[in-house]
Amino acid sequence: MTTVGILGGGQLARMLALSGAPLGLRFLVLDTVADACAGQFAPMVVGDYTDEAALSEFASKIDVATFDFENVPAESARWLAERVPVFPNPRALAVAQDRLAEKSLFRELGIPVPGFVDIASRDQLDAAVAELGTPCILKTRRLGYDGKGQFRIKSPADVDAAWNALGAQAASVGLILEAFVAFERELSVVAVRGRDGEFRAWPLTENWHVDGVLSASLAPARVDAATQATALSHAKRLADALDYVGVFALELFCRGGELLANELAPRVHNSGHWTIEGSETSQFQNHLRAVLGLSLGSTRMLGHACMLNWIGAMPDAAPVLREAGGHWHDYGKEARAGRKVGHATLRADVPTELAESLRRVGESLGREAQVEPVIAALR
Amino acid sequence: MTTVGILGGGQLARMLALSGAPLGLRFLVLDTVADACAGQFAPMVVGDYTDEAALSEFASKIDVATFDFENVPAESARWLAERVPVFPNPRALAVAQDRLAEKSLFRELGIPVPGFVDIASRDQLDAAVAELGTPCILKTRRLGYDGKGQFRIKSPADVDAAWNALGAQAASVGLILEAFVAFERELSVVAVRGRDGEFRAWPLTENWHVDGVLSASLAPARVDAATQATALSHAKRLADALDYVGVFALELFCRGGELLANELAPRVHNSGHWTIEGSETSQFQNHLRAVLGLSLGSTRMLGHACMLNWIGAMPDAAPVLREAGGHWHDYGKEARAGRKVGHATLRADVPTELAESLRRVGESLGREAQVEPVIAALR
Ligand SMILES: Nc1ncnc2c1ncn2[C@@H]1O[C@H](COP(=O)(O)OP(=O)(O)OP(=O)(O)O)[C@@H](O)[C@H]1O
Ligand SMILES: Nc1ncnc2c1ncn2[C@@H]1O[C@H](COP(=O)(O)OP(=O)(O)OP(=O)(O)O)[C@@H](O)[C@H]1O
Repeated sequence: MTTVGILGGGQLARMLALSGAPLGLRFLVLDTVADACAGQFAPMVVGDYTDEAALSEFASKIDVATFDFENVPAESARWLAERVPVFPNPRALAVAQDRLAEKSLFRELGIPVPGFVDIASRDQLDAAVAELGTPCILKTRRLGYDGKGQFRIKSPADVDAAWNALGAQAASVGLILEAFVAFERELSVVAVRGRDGEFRAWPLTENWHVDGVLSASLAPARVDAATQATALSHAKRLADALDYVGVFALELFCRGGELLANELAPRVHNSGHWTIEGSETSQFQNHLRAVLGLSLGSTRMLGHACMLNWIGAMPDAAPVLREAGGHWHDYGKEARAGRKVGHATLRADVPTELAESLRRVGESLGREAQVEPVIAALR
Repeated sequence: MTTVGILGGGQLARMLALSGAPLGLRFLVLDTVADACAGQFAPMVVGDYTDEAALSEFASKIDVATFDFENVPAESARWLAERVPVFPNPRALAVAQDRLAEKSLFRELGIPVPGFVDIASRDQLDAAVAELGTPCILKTRRLGYDGKGQFRIKSPADVDAAWNALGAQAASVGLILEAFVAFERELSVVAVRGRDGEFRAWPLTENWHVDGVLSASLAPARVDAATQATALSHAKRLADALDYVGVFALELFCRGGELLANELAPRVHNSGHWTIEGSETSQFQNHLRAVLGLSLGSTRMLGHACMLNWIGAMPDAAPVLREAGGHWHDYGKEARAGRKVGHATLRADVPTELAESLRRVGESLGREAQVEPVIAALR
């Protein structure tokens, strides 16, 4: 009997547990709050990620550890790694936690990135804005997610406001200034690397964000074979360099046919949720297979899939459940503004069918704006 | 928040919970033993099905009840049905619990059945063996499963042995004598009926039993359209007559193109496990959708699927996980002779691919005998 420990008990941990159960696995979730939604289907240890007593109890009951939440303190990950195998390894986690380390590694590996500058002071910010030009984005180096900890600088006049908003964090989590990329589309590579270095990727996914939060994903993305190959080779180089084990996502901007790396998510990723129904093997099961050293499953697609994120509150399920290819995912969370509470996946054999299904769902739910860009992409 | 209560905590309850989690459901399992395998992923009440205190606690915490185990005493089901909605309804359960009631209903509905006679005494057995001829099978009317409580009478000389084995149960659970059907193949209809009477069936499944226990299932079954239509019309008539809500299986013998009904399983069924990966909607999710009055999901197939049952102990997972369409299901049970401990499903786009995959798995596991009849069927 193998018990997998998961740091963080959100929807990713919940879906990992649900998809790992058929492998005969047991799970133990560590989270800071007792009502974390993964706790509905897996036993929990409640405690802070830096609380050594909680970490000790957690470590004593598991065979291997992995993450639902990438902002677990790197020290906690290292502490744990001295006691049980931890995948991905703490170094990969540390790199992915820091936008500067991450982008520096991308550059080192020959993966193109938007211009970026490390910012420690107001003077450096002024100089960097002059260097990169506007628009640009000031971001915290660490602890940002879902577009939080970001400030868009549209013109030099916004620098004051940006510094007021984030300057205080220069000393704590650090800041980075990035050139703004006027991308035509956003893509992600969701991929998995095994303990033995075997690498597999799902077909590229196209993503739409609203206010910095993922709103919809479409797979396969409408890209040519060369773009697909370049994206996969970036992802593979990155995973090999980090000796990465498990599933990760590499988020990319696509501009004029060029791919620029935005970030590495060192875990199963929201843009890979469609793999549950849309692929032979889901990202969740493949993450566990990788972490446990089992054969990786096939990443081939079963038709075309679109994932719609539900943010804040769950809409009515009926319009999705009425669709032949409609699949519902309610994370069992309480409604709260900005919170990811669930998603739906629509699957179809051909793009026109998928577009029709999206149109019906969008109309029934009054969410035309959410489905429209995906429908346009399918045309 | 809706909590579904499940009577019985075996693998069916476990797979119901895993497949219902995405609908935002919570589960509560009632079982007589604390280590029932569904308890690894759902909270439990431990107690006897006739223990009113346990039933009360169970009833007070759930919104609707259903079954993993059909041999829950009919009285307990009725007691519960006075307190919470119970699907399938206790009458359907009672009919399915009694081979005599079940076969009488089949006959009443014009569904052909093998010859059968109710047996209350040794004299009646002698007369019935003379009437039906040999070979024939003496079975307990109630509480039989996986071929238990059966005795095959090959010639009149076996009547003594049959009566010695089962005669004592004539007064408790009742006995029935059935003509032995020299079938060419066994089929099952796995179907679902909603609260509003909507009826959907998965494509017919072909099944192979070893020692009365399911060994392998193949879907779609190799049958012509007429056979498929007849089987579905039998299943629909039966479900309508019982006002059945949820998933059920109708097991059929196929002999010389004719279908004879063997039995009704009033629950998700082992011969429908392939629907998890092989169909747009699994039997587990559709059972819950029906029980909750939600839209039923599509029962269309995704390619061709074969399920292999693991009895007694789990084999090595590696050969299955190496297959592109290989999916593993370990129920988290302890090994024990004759126990259903898990299954694998192999999926492929075309029959020849599925046959190749089965051949490789059979060979690697030294289970050629288990896969051989399925490979032969795929030729
Ligand atoms: N340099 C940039 N140029 C253009 N758009 C950007 C840039 N950086 C971020 N964005 C937009 O904001 C979104 C979120 O940004 P980013 O991925 O940096 O944030 P995050 O908080 O780490 O998000 P997540 O949790 O979704 O990974 C991006 O997907 C993109 O739509
Ligand atoms: N009348 C019959 N003629 C031929 N074979 C039979 C007959 N009855 C049972 N069998 C064989 O034994 C198997 C199990 O029988 P049956 O379905 O009655 O048992 P059960 O204990 O209710 O099984 P399960 O739990 O699998 O439904 C059948 O699938 C079939 O292979």
